[in-house]
Amino acid sequence: MDFTLSPELLALRERTRRFIDEMVIPHERQMPDIEDVAAWDGLRAKLQAAAREAGVFLPQLGAEWGGLGLNWVGNAVVFEEAGRSALGIQALNCAAPDEGNMHLIEKIGTSAQHDQYLRPLAAGAVRSCFAMTEPPPGAGTDPSLLATSAERHGKRWVINGKKHFISGASGAAFCIVMAKTDTVRGRHGATMFLVDADNPGFRVTRRPQIYDRSFIGGHCEVSFEDCEVGEDAILGAANEGFDYAQVRLRPARLTHCMRWLGAARRATEHAMAHALARQSFNSRLADHQGVQWLLADCEIDMHSSRLLIWHAAWLLDQGATASHETAVAKVAVSEAVNRVADRCIQVCGAQGMSEDLPLANLYRETRAFRIYDGPSEVHRMTIAKRLIRRADGTERGH
Amino acid sequence: MDFTLSPELLALRERTRRFIDEMVIPHERQMPDIEDVAAWDGLRAKLQAAAREAGVFLPQLGAEWGGLGLNWVGNAVVFEEAGRSALGIQALNCAAPDEGNMHLIEKIGTSAQHDQYLRPLAAGAVRSCFAMTEPPPGAGTDPSLLATSAERHGKRWVINGKKHFISGASGAAFCIVMAKTDTVRGRHGATMFLVDADNPGFRVTRRPQIYDRSFIGGHCEVSFEDCEVGEDAILGAANEGFDYAQVRLRPARLTHCMRWLGAARRATEHAMAHALARQSFNSRLADHQGVQWLLADCEIDMHSSRLLIWHAAWLLDQGATASHETAVAKVAVSEAVNRVADRCIQVCGAQGMSEDLPLANLYRETRAFRIYDGPSEVHRMTIAKRLIRRADGTERGH
Amino acid sequence: MDFTLSPELLALRERTRRFIDEMVIPHERQMPDIEDVAAWDGLRAKLQAAAREAGVFLPQLGAEWGGLGLNWVGNAVVFEEAGRSALGIQALNCAAPDEGNMHLIEKIGTSAQHDQYLRPLAAGAVRSCFAMTEPPPGAGTDPSLLATSAERHGKRWVINGKKHFISGASGAAFCIVMAKTDTVRGRHGATMFLVDADNPGFRVTRRPQIYDRSFIGGHCEVSFEDCEVGEDAILGAANEGFDYAQVRLRPARLTHCMRWLGAARRATEHAMAHALARQSFNSRLADHQGVQWLLADCEIDMHSSRLLIWHAAWLLDQGATASHETAVAKVAVSEAVNRVADRCIQVCGAQGMSEDLPLANLYRETRAFRIYDGPSEVHRMTIAKRLIRRADGTERGH
Amino acid sequence: MDFTLSPELLALRERTRRFIDEMVIPHERQMPDIEDVAAWDGLRAKLQAAAREAGVFLPQLGAEWGGLGLNWVGNAVVFEEAGRSALGIQALNCAAPDEGNMHLIEKIGTSAQHDQYLRPLAAGAVRSCFAMTEPPPGAGTDPSLLATSAERHGKRWVINGKKHFISGASGAAFCIVMAKTDTVRGRHGATMFLVDADNPGFRVTRRPQIYDRSFIGGHCEVSFEDCEVGEDAILGAANEGFDYAQVRLRPARLTHCMRWLGAARRATEHAMAHALARQSFNSRLADHQGVQWLLADCEIDMHSSRLLIWHAAWLLDQGATASHETAVAKVAVSEAVNRVADRCIQVCGAQGMSEDLPLANLYRETRAFRIYDGPSEVHRMTIAKRLIRRADGTERGH
Repeated sequence: MDFTLSPELLALRERTRRFIDEMVIPHERQMPDIEDVAAWDGLRAKLQAAAREAGVFLPQLGAEWGGLGLNWVGNAVVFEEAGRSALGIQALNCAAPDEGNMHLIEKIGTSAQHDQYLRPLAAGAVRSCFAMTEPPPGAGTDPSLLATSAERHGKRWVINGKKHFISGASGAAFCIVMAKTDTVRGRHGATMFLVDADNPGFRVTRRPQIYDRSFIGGHCEVSFEDCEVGEDAILGAANEGFDYAQVRLRPARLTHCMRWLGAARRATEHAMAHALARQSFNSRLADHQGVQWLLADCEIDMHSSRLLIWHAAWLLDQGATASHETAVAKVAVSEAVNRVADRCIQVCGAQGMSEDLPLANLYRETRAFRIYDGPSEVHRMTIAKRLIRRADGTERGH
Repeated sequence: MDFTLSPELLALRERTRRFIDEMVIPHERQMPDIEDVAAWDGLRAKLQAAAREAGVFLPQLGAEWGGLGLNWVGNAVVFEEAGRSALGIQALNCAAPDEGNMHLIEKIGTSAQHDQYLRPLAAGAVRSCFAMTEPPPGAGTDPSLLATSAERHGKRWVINGKKHFISGASGAAFCIVMAKTDTVRGRHGATMFLVDADNPGFRVTRRPQIYDRSFIGGHCEVSFEDCEVGEDAILGAANEGFDYAQVRLRPARLTHCMRWLGAARRATEHAMAHALARQSFNSRLADHQGVQWLLADCEIDMHSSRLLIWHAAWLLDQGATASHETAVAKVAVSEAVNRVADRCIQVCGAQGMSEDLPLANLYRETRAFRIYDGPSEVHRMTIAKRLIRRADGTERGH
Repeated sequence: MDFTLSPELLALRERTRRFIDEMVIPHERQMPDIEDVAAWDGLRAKLQAAAREAGVFLPQLGAEWGGLGLNWVGNAVVFEEAGRSALGIQALNCAAPDEGNMHLIEKIGTSAQHDQYLRPLAAGAVRSCFAMTEPPPGAGTDPSLLATSAERHGKRWVINGKKHFISGASGAAFCIVMAKTDTVRGRHGATMFLVDADNPGFRVTRRPQIYDRSFIGGHCEVSFEDCEVGEDAILGAANEGFDYAQVRLRPARLTHCMRWLGAARRATEHAMAHALARQSFNSRLADHQGVQWLLADCEIDMHSSRLLIWHAAWLLDQGATASHETAVAKVAVSEAVNRVADRCIQVCGAQGMSEDLPLANLYRETRAFRIYDGPSEVHRMTIAKRLIRRADGTERGH
Repeated sequence: MDFTLSPELLALRERTRRFIDEMVIPHERQMPDIEDVAAWDGLRAKLQAAAREAGVFLPQLGAEWGGLGLNWVGNAVVFEEAGRSALGIQALNCAAPDEGNMHLIEKIGTSAQHDQYLRPLAAGAVRSCFAMTEPPPGAGTDPSLLATSAERHGKRWVINGKKHFISGASGAAFCIVMAKTDTVRGRHGATMFLVDADNPGFRVTRRPQIYDRSFIGGHCEVSFEDCEVGEDAILGAANEGFDYAQVRLRPARLTHCMRWLGAARRATEHAMAHALARQSFNSRLADHQGVQWLLADCEIDMHSSRLLIWHAAWLLDQGATASHETAVAKVAVSEAVNRVADRCIQVCGAQGMSEDLPLANLYRETRAFRIYDGPSEVHRMTIAKRLIRRADGTERGH
């Protein structure tokens, strides 16, 4: 067993930390209005240029894409640093949903798709989205209810359906959409398609107000109306969409954890600063035993989270699917970082609720994280079912 | 012992419920922008007219002020109903901070102050604010750090200082401000002043962004710079400000509880509707055991909260100060309603995070409620200290 | 609404408090070995004599049974006082399972059954038990699995089956047993029988070790083997056993709450004494903020519990079934008192774990209380199902 | 980073698992009475012989002591396996307090002390105890209150004082006692002495009843009355006792975690077996969503605990003091395993409370673990103080 990080990785971590502190955090006070996608994209481009300059851009992809070529453990370390600022992960081009889409396209896309979609995405020239979740009675946490369909018409496919809570859809250059293609085969009959945003059959129909700031392009409703694409729009093999979804979701839920852990750390930095500065009842807040407990619980939550992430990341690096471990990490980390945000707000008092500090925003976003990419309840169910299958002999363990 | 509500109160409760459902909730979808104070005040006026019409306006004050003359138990019942909508408590003119200010002025104001300040406030013609909390190193949760001062200059007083998180300050017609007036007497040397918003020495200096919608007029920073007032601006007796603050705060923290309980109930209505409508894994969400637990826990939290509120309200009706019981209720109810909001969001999934439902807003606001009017930590400390004094003999109990 | 207790009840409360302090608690240090039923019954008799003397014996039954004739609210107040000592509820003859059995027999028994069973039970001359729970695959939390059967043979009934966790069975003079009598009618085909302990067909087969001390007679396994009884052994009407079980269980789960609340209060008395006496890090434990939070949370839990109990008791006094409110109280209070016990142990440190203080025992017993009389999980399910039926229109509310 | 365990360690883990299942667990149903120290020691000897036979004895010490020479990570893996049974850690001779005492004596003892004390202890021929905690007003969680003193009289030292909660004292062959030796030097003036149990000045004065079964020899009160020892009784250097205590306590609190984690795993094995076997409401318990959540939470708690332990163990293997990480692990793991025990009881219902399953015992013991070796509250305080010192610049981090 060895928890050592390589000297190169330690250096990159340090470089990223400095980049975030010096080049990114100063921009937080002038964040564009959440609806002003163009301003956001402008800021993003500026920060990405700085990240390239600083040698911290695109940690997760290889040199052929302009990246740093880190493995999952490396990503864990660097994404955490970048996650200290909601702008940081934009700067490094490792934010959701693009990061997960890059990973997926690299893994299962054709070389033409690499050129057309991955390259500009990796370069930060465009953004993308991933359209799976549907309004009732379609696929929510239960993917078997998938209602969006793609029908083959000769060499073309025609997609029809509605999706909602599609993060980053507004302003995205393209969309990966999951649609039913083989109703006979049940769960295994879905296919992923790459759809350009300027396809006349694709439309962002609505952007519901959601008070988080980390997803440029919001969480939108989109529609596919007789949306026609060719064979070359199929991502991976036809009818294998559900399996590919797992390919995307397993690491994606873990990279979420990595970024949020950084955000949680940032929250504790503010809480600690406040606890050291604010006096009450004849001492610093930091000297009150109860406040110390809050700070200690943050540390315990973050340290546990980090180890859960590192372990699952290491498994992915070994080629394991790590379904179980990434699910455990997702539940534990999402709830831990939400608790951390909650405690840090409490330490900061009314100031913690104001947008002067990033805490209130973090509280909202980490709350959402307990739902996005599978609510805790569903992950708990699948974790337990796996344990049950192992115990009653229907599955052989670990 | 008797938990019976009078037929009149039951009828008023029913009337209020119908008023909220039919006249108030339909307006929720067109809420003005949070910064647009004028639009808010317009909507408020319209809703208040409707409430007068419906016979539910101003439940907490007597007929001489145009109110319904309820006691605290009556308020508990009606405020809960009104609290089902953030607009409802505006409609009935029983929202914070006005409701607490009315109570205070009625109790300790002169008859001239009644005419000048209470009458228009009760009528809904103006709004007000209460300025106690100060930025560091001033008075936060520890009131002994009060830094704002009022110096006597002949027959005039000159107030200087800064306050922050002053709810409703933007657009308020007047402000009750707490200032140090007698440094010799320590804690007992503060005085409350009524300051008109158009006093040249008073200014709303900043409105920090806080994502809650229930306080028209935001949570502002205000400043007093050589703010001159006369003797008649003193509310109550000079140097008794801290005692008066308790007169205001004890029932005020309880009426907060009443309103939030209504909001929590509203949240469960949405969660239940979603749980009945949404299918997943071959049944309604409502049929999943885990979801049932979440719903049951909401019920337990709300039922306990209601009893804590009713009991403390009854004590106030008996003339008790109920410092202990209102503090217990404040801690318990604020945390309970925050848990309720959290669970309801989880039941509703991603929809719970969107502003299409009032849940996300409620989640933010109930979070703040664990801080406003004294954070849970400070109330826990004072509750325990009272128990300790009783136990070690320094104070005789109950 | 009125939370006033009558002067008579206040006087009885005070009398009970003094009786527990002076006559009962001194006996706690010489508690008999848990298995020595005879010694326990001896101590019980002695304490009951003292209780009669002090005018606090049998609060829950009428004067015709030698009792004080309190209503449920009265019981709530007095049982809490008695519950401060595990011996106290024995002294007053208001402990489980006898108290619930008295209530049931009084309500549905014939006058002959009153004479033969209720009178000696009320007098404390004998003890009883209630046999419902069965080992797998019989009736556990799901009563529909009832496996014990009673077959009619002419004018006699023959009972066969096994029960486990039958509290107080060892040394009980008689047993109320629930048996299936009409398999056609499904759930409604169970009957309650009164079976004398000396019936040759009845046997206490095993007393598993369970480390709680509050149930004289343990939690036993009992068997009915061709256990023959006459028609006069039927308690209430045949085939109505499940309905009667609710008659017993609804108030019984509430009286549990009353007694445990007293026990929780006692725990906080020890915790407070320790917090006042023990020094660490330059002050009394009681002066540490964190310890104060623990004490405050105990107070909040107990105060909420008391109100939940009082409200449900009042409903029972009004003739309501209060299924919902007693279930809510049972879940909330059982978990609250377990938390209180947990915190008090923590305040007392290692001493809290030793049998020198009653805390460790209370911790074990309150843990069990989250399971006995229906585990929290099942109550949560039934609470939610009632809410769901109200919401989807299958049932009209409250 | 690498989470791989060596093939040798994996083989030893497997061997230990089988040893526990086949040779140890069958003995659990005939555990001696808790007070019968001789019977316990007999059983222990028998199990240790079997462990030697199986090649799993004394994992933590080197071959020169008859052990397997594992490092801390190795111990983590094997102690967890052994911890699945309270008898297992006795069998392997890696139970507290002996395991910590062996480590301490090996580290700081003279070669004569190695021969006289460590050798028989390592061989399992004798047991030992560690006497630090004192009754009020002595040293509890605050070691600076140390009251037991040792005075030098020529070449002899005379120890006087009382200790309590001394685990394993009854039947121990010797005791390591901490006594004040230099009042001038304050905190740094304590010394550790090795005292033979047959020293006439040493006495086990009382064995308070504590319902846990894992510590042979109970948690006793002991006294030192003019207890005379020579210079050679000093363990390590004089006046360095507090530093040595840390040498012992840091790994000792981690080995506690390792063993308890195994116990928690065992609890989940019982809960899973029950959930698979028991039917209620038309399905296995394991098929209820709520029960699945309980099982999933156990998995999450145990997986996090294991990683916290492994990480801190690895740090110790690198020669780090790991004060911070062992404290974090102690708090987190002790609370996690207590939660696991609690949930497993709930899954098993009333059966979970009976001594037929090891759950009730585990629940009591894991509860105690939140207090022993420093209560969570004190660890939280020290964790936070370290963070505070890092943040305000009084200490340089990690």
